[in-house]
Amino acid sequence: MSRFFSEKYGSLVPYTPGEQPKDQKYVKLNTNESPFPPSLKARRLAKAEADKLKLYSDPECRDLTAAAAEYLGIPKDRIIFNNGSDETLNFAFMAFCDKDHPAVFPDITYGFYPVFAELNGVPYETVPLREDFTVNVDDFLNVGKTVLLANPNAPTGIALPLSEIERIVASNPDNVVVIDEAYVDFGGESAIPLTEKYDNLLVIQTFSKSRSLAGARLGFGVGCPALIRDLNTVRYSTNPYNVNRMTMAAGVGALADQEYFEKNCKTVMKTRAWTVNELKKLGFTVLDSCANFIFTSDPDYPGAELYRDLKENGILVRHFTAPRLDPYNRITIGSRDEMKILIDTIKKLKEERK
Amino acid sequence: MSRFFSEKYGSLVPYTPGEQPKDQKYVKLNTNESPFPPSLKARRLAKAEADKLKLYSDPECRDLTAAAAEYLGIPKDRIIFNNGSDETLNFAFMAFCDKDHPAVFPDITYGFYPVFAELNGVPYETVPLREDFTVNVDDFLNVGKTVLLANPNAPTGIALPLSEIERIVASNPDNVVVIDEAYVDFGGESAIPLTEKYDNLLVIQTFSKSRSLAGARLGFGVGCPALIRDLNTVRYSTNPYNVNRMTMAAGVGALADQEYFEKNCKTVMKTRAWTVNELKKLGFTVLDSCANFIFTSDPDYPGAELYRDLKENGILVRHFTAPRLDPYNRITIGSRDEMKILIDTIKKLKEERK
Repeated sequence: MSRFFSEKYGSLVPYTPGEQPKDQKYVKLNTNESPFPPSLKARRLAKAEADKLKLYSDPECRDLTAAAAEYLGIPKDRIIFNNGSDETLNFAFMAFCDKDHPAVFPDITYGFYPVFAELNGVPYETVPLREDFTVNVDDFLNVGKTVLLANPNAPTGIALPLSEIERIVASNPDNVVVIDEAYVDFGGESAIPLTEKYDNLLVIQTFSKSRSLAGARLGFGVGCPALIRDLNTVRYSTNPYNVNRMTMAAGVGALADQEYFEKNCKTVMKTRAWTVNELKKLGFTVLDSCANFIFTSDPDYPGAELYRDLKENGILVRHFTAPRLDPYNRITIGSRDEMKILIDTIKKLKEERK
Repeated sequence: MSRFFSEKYGSLVPYTPGEQPKDQKYVKLNTNESPFPPSLKARRLAKAEADKLKLYSDPECRDLTAAAAEYLGIPKDRIIFNNGSDETLNFAFMAFCDKDHPAVFPDITYGFYPVFAELNGVPYETVPLREDFTVNVDDFLNVGKTVLLANPNAPTGIALPLSEIERIVASNPDNVVVIDEAYVDFGGESAIPLTEKYDNLLVIQTFSKSRSLAGARLGFGVGCPALIRDLNTVRYSTNPYNVNRMTMAAGVGALADQEYFEKNCKTVMKTRAWTVNELKKLGFTVLDSCANFIFTSDPDYPGAELYRDLKENGILVRHFTAPRLDPYNRITIGSRDEMKILIDTIKKLKEERK
């Protein structure tokens, strides 16, 4: 830290992203990326845009917003696009959390929430998940705080049904409820339809996972027009040109290729079912996942050891060291071939430990 | 504003970007974009990257940082890349300004500084420019505040010599001095060499103007390693993957094409000289510009009227309504053909007013 660094960030501990090795020597199952390339339409439109970069991007994201509005069947003034869903989440913390509106979220969830809270000087409370890693919905009823829930949750993959999400939203009419649906396309139920009924609901999604655009950085929020206006006030006070031209075009292309999107999501779910089955045969516990990753542990194979052994064998998964998470690893659902390599490697490793 | 919007932003007035018409019917001289496409190398590398978007971008920006370090002849740990220079500026306000370190900048400068200050709850003071729109350097000596100076300044285009910048940096050893060099490549003198001598100097540049990458969003900061670490703490607490893969690749390509960059900067300066000369012949006052724009007024032609008349004739320039700026317009230096159209149109308009 320099001697100039503002004291307000003196104890700020930044988020630690998953390893991003520069070489391609790993089977990379650690950051929930898609095993499929982006849709050809997305790539073509992005490439065409590379020739037009001398001009600023459209701060209003008009083409992309129109495409998303049509795709989602909602009016354009209910959507905001940002430089990844992380940026959208940060804008939500900025706009809807403060000393009078503290945040509340599960103790086990996306690790960036407490960082956003600290960054913005927002007091926050974490509510423990149940022993089985499910969210106890009653804990989030009438809380009088800004609620943040990842649904499906990370790193567990467990999803709440829409009816339970609605109970939470309905019971907190004077606070914003943020539902972070980064992984919803792999078996979850989106709360976007509820945004027409509740003015306190903000749903956040991303193009990173199900649309294979992690490297393009594109996320969006859906909510009532007043919430979206607030987020735009923050956006226009931070970085109005936050989405670049190529990414905007890639987003339009990805939305136009619905068939490819649906096929890929189905393939991931099928590969997930296969992987879960294989792991269970090997004695692993696997939480019920509605995401493009699974959270798994083996009573005979401590999580940190499995992480390390897999890495030594060329496979990257994600390990978290918090006490309840330590026995587990979060494993992205890659291609069928990649998951076969994973299972074969685990078999080999378990043999060697006997 | 929704009933949920945090009170701390109750009086926040966002930045107003220049008009970005979706159709191409205007001669667009309003947002200081380059008249030249990005370098072929930049476009080729960006396009190749569009096929790899399923993977996250490198949060450490290793390739781009290495290329920039080599280009600038400085160590890699003195550079940070961000999603445009606006984001770098906002991070600087976050990291180096607070109640104990208020900000100070000229009353006439980049209009985003007061917005960043308001956004971050930073008290700030503005110092009036002299009557001739130059910065009085003495006003910024020993101020005990975080200093922000655009050099060349906007919307005036007037530059301070490096020796004057150094006086300011040297006289404020306990505060960060931010030099915003968005326009430095068109005739200014960069303070980057001074960052090795002063640990309180942060220089910010952009690829938007001189490297024709406005639509890609790429800016960077240069300073001593401790300052860069602080900015990275903020970045990793906000949006670690803030620069997308295509833009990173475009940046590498642009840095590799030094010849193209130099040729374009020279052409802009030559076209600027021609335009200034023509405007002066028509009775305009033009401030001495070291930027890719000029700030100009005509005693017989109020700024707002000229702006309106040019727009009606298919030419967009930028007009600001603040009292001292109102007589003027800021006009981007486009291609020679575009400037010829501008001059011919102004001639015609002045004829019609006689």
